[in-house]
Amino acid sequence: MSLQDVVNVPNNLWVLFSALLVFLMTIAVGFLEIGELGEDHSKSLLKTMLISGSALFFMAFIGFNTAFAPTIRGFIGDPMYGGVFLGGLTPNVAGLLSGVWWSMTSEYFGTGITLGTYFIFEAAFASVTLALVGVIVLKKVKLEAFFLFSIPYFIIIWSLPAAWIWNPTGWLYLMGMRDFAGGLVVHGAAGATGLAFICQIWREEKKKGLKESPKVQISLNPSWLVLSLLLLWIGWFGFNPGSVLAIDYGTEVVVLTTFLSAASAFLSTMFFRYLMTRQNPGLLYAVNGVLMGLIVITPLAGFVSPGVAMILGFVSGPIFLYAETWFSKFKWLSDPIGLFPGHMLGGLFGTVMIAFFAKQAFAAASGFPTLSDGLLFGGGYGAIQQLGIEVFGIVVVMATVFALSYLCLWLIGAALHGITTDYEKEKLIPSSP
Amino acid sequence: MSLQDVVNVPNNLWVLFSALLVFLMTIAVGFLEIGELGEDHSKSLLKTMLISGSALFFMAFIGFNTAFAPTIRGFIGDPMYGGVFLGGLTPNVAGLLSGVWWSMTSEYFGTGITLGTYFIFEAAFASVTLALVGVIVLKKVKLEAFFLFSIPYFIIIWSLPAAWIWNPTGWLYLMGMRDFAGGLVVHGAAGATGLAFICQIWREEKKKGLKESPKVQISLNPSWLVLSLLLLWIGWFGFNPGSVLAIDYGTEVVVLTTFLSAASAFLSTMFFRYLMTRQNPGLLYAVNGVLMGLIVITPLAGFVSPGVAMILGFVSGPIFLYAETWFSKFKWLSDPIGLFPGHMLGGLFGTVMIAFFAKQAFAAASGFPTLSDGLLFGGGYGAIQQLGIEVFGIVVVMATVFALSYLCLWLIGAALHGITTDYEKEKLIPSSP
Amino acid sequence: MSLQDVVNVPNNLWVLFSALLVFLMTIAVGFLEIGELGEDHSKSLLKTMLISGSALFFMAFIGFNTAFAPTIRGFIGDPMYGGVFLGGLTPNVAGLLSGVWWSMTSEYFGTGITLGTYFIFEAAFASVTLALVGVIVLKKVKLEAFFLFSIPYFIIIWSLPAAWIWNPTGWLYLMGMRDFAGGLVVHGAAGATGLAFICQIWREEKKKGLKESPKVQISLNPSWLVLSLLLLWIGWFGFNPGSVLAIDYGTEVVVLTTFLSAASAFLSTMFFRYLMTRQNPGLLYAVNGVLMGLIVITPLAGFVSPGVAMILGFVSGPIFLYAETWFSKFKWLSDPIGLFPGHMLGGLFGTVMIAFFAKQAFAAASGFPTLSDGLLFGGGYGAIQQLGIEVFGIVVVMATVFALSYLCLWLIGAALHGITTDYEKEKLIPSSP
Repeated sequence: MSLQDVVNVPNNLWVLFSALLVFLMTIAVGFLEIGELGEDHSKSLLKTMLISGSALFFMAFIGFNTAFAPTIRGFIGDPMYGGVFLGGLTPNVAGLLSGVWWSMTSEYFGTGITLGTYFIFEAAFASVTLALVGVIVLKKVKLEAFFLFSIPYFIIIWSLPAAWIWNPTGWLYLMGMRDFAGGLVVHGAAGATGLAFICQIWREEKKKGLKESPKVQISLNPSWLVLSLLLLWIGWFGFNPGSVLAIDYGTEVVVLTTFLSAASAFLSTMFFRYLMTRQNPGLLYAVNGVLMGLIVITPLAGFVSPGVAMILGFVSGPIFLYAETWFSKFKWLSDPIGLFPGHMLGGLFGTVMIAFFAKQAFAAASGFPTLSDGLLFGGGYGAIQQLGIEVFGIVVVMATVFALSYLCLWLIGAALHGITTDYEKEKLIPSSP
Repeated sequence: MSLQDVVNVPNNLWVLFSALLVFLMTIAVGFLEIGELGEDHSKSLLKTMLISGSALFFMAFIGFNTAFAPTIRGFIGDPMYGGVFLGGLTPNVAGLLSGVWWSMTSEYFGTGITLGTYFIFEAAFASVTLALVGVIVLKKVKLEAFFLFSIPYFIIIWSLPAAWIWNPTGWLYLMGMRDFAGGLVVHGAAGATGLAFICQIWREEKKKGLKESPKVQISLNPSWLVLSLLLLWIGWFGFNPGSVLAIDYGTEVVVLTTFLSAASAFLSTMFFRYLMTRQNPGLLYAVNGVLMGLIVITPLAGFVSPGVAMILGFVSGPIFLYAETWFSKFKWLSDPIGLFPGHMLGGLFGTVMIAFFAKQAFAAASGFPTLSDGLLFGGGYGAIQQLGIEVFGIVVVMATVFALSYLCLWLIGAALHGITTDYEKEKLIPSSP
Repeated sequence: MSLQDVVNVPNNLWVLFSALLVFLMTIAVGFLEIGELGEDHSKSLLKTMLISGSALFFMAFIGFNTAFAPTIRGFIGDPMYGGVFLGGLTPNVAGLLSGVWWSMTSEYFGTGITLGTYFIFEAAFASVTLALVGVIVLKKVKLEAFFLFSIPYFIIIWSLPAAWIWNPTGWLYLMGMRDFAGGLVVHGAAGATGLAFICQIWREEKKKGLKESPKVQISLNPSWLVLSLLLLWIGWFGFNPGSVLAIDYGTEVVVLTTFLSAASAFLSTMFFRYLMTRQNPGLLYAVNGVLMGLIVITPLAGFVSPGVAMILGFVSGPIFLYAETWFSKFKWLSDPIGLFPGHMLGGLFGTVMIAFFAKQAFAAASGFPTLSDGLLFGGGYGAIQQLGIEVFGIVVVMATVFALSYLCLWLIGAALHGITTDYEKEKLIPSSP
């Protein structure tokens, strides 16, 4: 056993540990819905279990390959790399019983992660992304339609941005696009898919003669709300620090940036909400404040100093408060948990901030040595170029994910006579007499 | 510090982490009962706390030695090895402050695990085994009778199968019997002890003049049900991958087989249940599906490929559905949580499957280099021999555990004037007028 | 990369993992309040979220430095060491991106922990200490007063004992005072601050004309109670074993002492309570028994054998039962969760026991090679000296923390026209007609 093997072991241990934490987050989103909307929404838990199971199954089938196998011209991972179902019945799969996954060799990221470790980590990421989308479908979308959608989602829709940005042979990665732990690949893309759901739902609601999209009422269940927040918070301990794909000096900084941004955003959200209303903001803003801080730091947690994380966290509080008001204006949009003002906006905002706040020393420590300093740290022309690349990447990914998602939903809607439920039976609208 | 010490450290860290996850599972079984039977069953939580405490205390007293100390003629671990209570007051116990536990030296398993790490891991296993038994006693068995039973259970009943199969000097181990993480030692044996409880309970119920065993009604509490499932699922992340007793390439495959079997069994249970009833199977089948996949893969998670794990998971769904119907026929058997169709049958089925699906390359990577290929991978005569050994081991262990358990319950019943509660007071039967 | 770096990596991984477990404990205290007092106390969760956020923010601001930077004459850590906010925007902070934190170099503790790891671990400790204090304020103290108090608390009040006892240049540390994981620094000091709250509250209650301090009624919620216990129990897996600040042979013994003391205290509390009342002690005593065992072992978990841990655990049961009765006599004291008979008394009792039960071999293995054997192990004069130092340290720390806390509360009370709530509105006293 060489010294390199000895180093690889803690790296794999760390990423396995992180994967388990991220795995918690999918079902935690189910508890979040129950915490915000009430215990009679237990279908949320069945939905998030279904997402967990479908993610593991279909990512193993082929989705992991389409995202993380060597790409075909930078566009999509080779779906047959190593074979379907992670090699099926054979032990002769690269990185399974010996050696490491191709992109974790010293030629690429060099952290020595094996196929088993990497698969579990990324399947948990794919799973939680769809769980974020799922907060839109509550009571409105048939469970079988949502399950059917998950199949192309895990096979191709989630995989494409990952193949482009996180795969070291992806075309956006090669262009210089960076997204540390998924401001775009997870949170932004979840928003794009969510928007596709909203469009299809609204199209069907208009057909039903509705003038506006029925909204699900907030009905707090404090204990489950805070338990879900706690699970999400510790989940993010895997989500961001685990994304270094190694345990070293850089990882320990990512723990700091992640937790300090959360604390800062929490205090800032409470503070500005108090300024707005002059009363105790209550648990819902406490929870959303923490989440907003965690979301905003996600795309650049490995690129910035602890101090910058606190600034970004502090800024993200008022952004959420303003955006929440803005999104609530649209009568065709029902977003009870805050997918758009929280996850989508926060994720994209953080991604753009890379070009402003990144610092090369931190980025290098977490495995991204080529990222240049941000505009605010004298990055100059390099930073402006980075800004252009990030914005370009956002536009391309959001458009692609939206289009593919909408296409799938349109097909599923056609096959199942609509993806929406019977609103009278679900008590979303009063029964006709 | 030598290179070997450096390797041992991550192995111990991994097993400590796994032990903590397995430790969660005992009280998670208490939440499972509340999730399936309703919040007024809070005694389940006291019971599972009692099991956790008793397991740590009596395994430390002597039970760890009877299972894992060098055996006396392969039959039982030396109860005085290192002294009672893990050496009591002295630091001079092998593996405590330096060196490793005897069976973890390079002469045997060679993973460098110390006494402290190994004790916590195995005490958590013993604890969760009795927690599985405990789902049978709900409302029917006096808490003091159950506690008294736990003492001989942790001192000798749990230890014997472990000494025979997991101790490298045990007679079944030396014969070639293998059981990766406890298809027989945990799940099968829990069924045998559960059967002994059922027999003693039914004997007392007949004396009370009952014509059939009163059944506890299912009354779902979705949030606690899914939280317990989540705890059990992540518990299994320690249960199976931790059973490699090391963190290396083999461990990472066990993570895959465990989680993929769970996902596959979940989808298959939902699918076949839907075929049976043509309606949404609901949360209870979702939870039982995941559990069945985790149970079936347990005895061979370290011996098979990810593809085989998905096949076994898929098959286990209909097995559970069929067995559940079959066991529900017996009027003398009340098994509200599914100990027999789930844990016992699933564990034994998986144990037998070793002889069919094992692949030498995977077994070697998780520390079992002498296991031959299974029948379906050209194992031929060696596989048939393995099949005979596994079946023989199952028969011997189930019979021994049943006999010892029944003997203890008979004695406790005699001492306490019956182990069963006052059924009228517990509202299991209507009060007499 | 040198061999030393390779050793440091698992140490950091272990402490990060431990930090996450300790982080869970703050909000777990919120669930404990809900579990003991009922679900309508959801403000407890907002309070514990506020503590978590404030701890991270103000410890990052300056509190970590005042506790763990090189001290000014042994009295307080240099508040500007490395700069506020962990260096703010610069990567040039010792231990952040390379090297290790000064006190973790081989000149001092030598475990190679970095700034990031150490900060998260200790911020979680500070946070949970205030959470223990917070069980006193339920319904009685304005949330804004409690939040204001948290600022000086994390900047200076929590830091002083840590700087004196855990900082290797602290004056009490240099005198020979030892407190393994916080019997005094956490549990005892939490009691001192709690007492300051009680004094300020009682002073204001007397002004309101009250003859005794209104008590909050116990109203068990079994599921949340046991979930919080489970979170606290696994939290202690990080709290004590993590306090070795390394993963090695000593750590694995601390896992044993921690868990065995818990199990032993649990059985002993149940047993003695049963002797007192001749009926099932119920969940509340089960939970308090486990907690008492965990508290008592905290200050010496790294200094004693597993056998001694079981003895101390066993003794701690009756101590808690007696103290609970004693403290309940005072009409000016409302302590529904048991801060004083549990945390304060248990922590101080354990701290004193160091001088009786410590064994040099165990202390050395967990990083304290200069601690002498205790009185019961032939420590003789050295042990008597240690006893004097421990008692002296307790008196100095308790007095200082009480005085500083009371001063801050007095100032906050003056600024906010009292720290207490409107008792009629909170339904602590009947509304006046």
